Amino acid sequence: MKGVTAPQGFLASTISCGIKRSKRDDLALLYSEVPCLCAATFTTNKMKSGSVVLAETRVKNGISQAVIVNSGNANCCVGKKELRDAEDMTGVAARSMDLDPDHVLIASTGIIGRSLPIKKIKSKIGALVKGLKKANGSKFAKAIMTTDTVPKEVVTEIKIGPTKVKIAGAAKGAGMICPDMATMLAFFTTDAAIEKGALKLAFKEAVADSFNRITIDGDMSTNDSAIIFANGLAGNKTIKKNSAGYFKFIKALKFVATELARKMILDGEGATKFVEIVIKGAKTQKDADIIARHVADSSLIKTMIAGGDPNWGRVAASVGSADVKINKDRVDIYIGNKSAMKNGASTNASLGALKGKEVKITVDLKSGRSSSRIWTCDLTEEYVKINAEYET
Amino acid sequence: MKGVTAPQGFLASTISCGIKRSKRDDLALLYSEVPCLCAATFTTNKMKSGSVVLAETRVKNGISQAVIVNSGNANCCVGKKELRDAEDMTGVAARSMDLDPDHVLIASTGIIGRSLPIKKIKSKIGALVKGLKKANGSKFAKAIMTTDTVPKEVVTEIKIGPTKVKIAGAAKGAGMICPDMATMLAFFTTDAAIEKGALKLAFKEAVADSFNRITIDGDMSTNDSAIIFANGLAGNKTIKKNSAGYFKFIKALKFVATELARKMILDGEGATKFVEIVIKGAKTQKDADIIARHVADSSLIKTMIAGGDPNWGRVAASVGSADVKINKDRVDIYIGNKSAMKNGASTNASLGALKGKEVKITVDLKSGRSSSRIWTCDLTEEYVKINAEYET
Repeated sequence: MKGVTAPQGFLASTISCGIKRSKRDDLALLYSEVPCLCAATFTTNKMKSGSVVLAETRVKNGISQAVIVNSGNANCCVGKKELRDAEDMTGVAARSMDLDPDHVLIASTGIIGRSLPIKKIKSKIGALVKGLKKANGSKFAKAIMTTDTVPKEVVTEIKIGPTKVKIAGAAKGAGMICPDMATMLAFFTTDAAIEKGALKLAFKEAVADSFNRITIDGDMSTNDSAIIFANGLAGNKTIKKNSAGYFKFIKALKFVATELARKMILDGEGATKFVEIVIKGAKTQKDADIIARHVADSSLIKTMIAGGDPNWGRVAASVGSADVKINKDRVDIYIGNKSAMKNGASTNASLGALKGKEVKITVDLKSGRSSSRIWTCDLTEEYVKINAEYET
Repeated sequence: MKGVTAPQGFLASTISCGIKRSKRDDLALLYSEVPCLCAATFTTNKMKSGSVVLAETRVKNGISQAVIVNSGNANCCVGKKELRDAEDMTGVAARSMDLDPDHVLIASTGIIGRSLPIKKIKSKIGALVKGLKKANGSKFAKAIMTTDTVPKEVVTEIKIGPTKVKIAGAAKGAGMICPDMATMLAFFTTDAAIEKGALKLAFKEAVADSFNRITIDGDMSTNDSAIIFANGLAGNKTIKKNSAGYFKFIKALKFVATELARKMILDGEGATKFVEIVIKGAKTQKDADIIARHVADSSLIKTMIAGGDPNWGRVAASVGSADVKINKDRVDIYIGNKSAMKNGASTNASLGALKGKEVKITVDLKSGRSSSRIWTCDLTEEYVKINAEYET
């Protein structure tokens, strides 16, 4: 079984209700046969969608059993109707599934500033609930897509004691992907039994290590949501914080999150290359992070990578323009494993064109022990084309 | 007379010394027949060029008579040779002009990480000095270009008391233009007699109001320099701080600087539209500036403008993702003079395509009295093309 329905007790369903002009499925439901512990992280954008506002409130009680997701409309910047529509949509879904509305979450993604066609949506929720099936995991990953070109889903299995436990995830997000959450939706499911605090902490760490370390264009959306549901149906001995099982769980969860993040980068709008920026030898973690993000968001560097041109001078200029004190005469730059700059001066090495799908740029500040890694993609003419034509 | 040689006593010369493969003129000299008061502002990039380091030191004594400029090579990230080459280049030029080397400034622009071909340059300086002419103002503006498609020069004339005074400027800079100085060279000349402190203050204000308020791609170069030379040959009554003449002078200087900044935007790599972002009603100036720059640097907004699509939701998302507290339910957004969002909600107005060469986006936070204006351009497929192919 693929996707988010791989762990025991999870079902999914999708349907087209006419939000997307393409008539593709634009409404999706993920459901657990029993109540789940849940944890989540949301966008910090001040213009956040009413769907995010509602989900944030409901996640606080820590128990949930379903999430309804629409694609094609962000339910954002339309005023008080946003929250009303989100309540209405989850309310109808809750009644159809015979659940407490407080146990139904919501996520929306798509165009900002247009009212949700709430009547159309509500009229399809009955059929959506009837369609809940184990086999619909991959359909779920597909229905949440907007400009994505491929669905993104990952499943892994570990053993907690003698018991097999599954962790799965599905995500969408192509443009607008940025550290600290951007138009990215990610849903995780697990049949592990795990303590509430342990789940929360593990999820926070996994997100910090994956989605918060990727950037496509430096923009941040109004709708980002990452949610995990744990229903305990695997019947393992409940995972406690800092136990051996916990470390196994967190490793597996990070694997799923990181793989999804990598898939997002590879599906970045117009992207042709996967780029890893590593900053080493910084005085503080904050310094390393600031420089890594500054370099990763540089249009000049991203276009140079698109062109396969190892113009490392742009990396040096970008490092120097980040708001961090550095000692220029100590800075080393590597393109792949070739040294391009040593102690602030060119090595005059012949670097050759940037071939292959993956490009790694390493900057060693040689001024401390902190480091930071960030993933991004190149900036191509295709990115501009996609985004210039998005709405029309 | 056009360009930087329009004010009395200024001469210019240009020559090709083989830095640029195109054989275009790549070495330029601007000279005043008498010593000038000078003021300047330089990049804050930590990886700054040796040429900037030397010019910064020499500007400190406040008197100068010439500047030598090379294009095609940034004289940056090559180690100790940078400063040696800059001293060598200005030294040979000083001897040829019979000046104190401390009165000769330097600026470089071009590829980072390659040694200056200092022998070639030195061998041409004699001919360069011999070529100094009043008629070479526009040639100067041309020789300092890199990826610029048109030279940029502006001249204006004012009266200080009964005396006519000229202010002129030439600038280069197409990609990498960013607030707080980026690969931008700007040279100003005036025959006004003005006190040292008044010149310094006026220049600082003019730069803050022009070059520091434009952005093309958010990157910041290692070589930015803006320098003004005032030789007093107009014979006006010396301009003092806060006098009527001072306010006339500063107004004219701002006009020249702003026009040059506007020309740079219009010549932004691949740019097809001039974009003005205005943030109003912010609590503090800092808040207004942060949001204005955040919006102006958003790839999603710049591509949307390239496509002529008034997708104001991206503006809302960008405003909300800037690191400033706002009250979302008060925010108004205007595209041109049409209201797109009122109090955080769509007006559902039909905005039509973004026609014309100029696009103005106004965001009113309605939370205070501070405002900020920034100019930028759209992000086109052509920008990516130019930058993916820059070196090769």
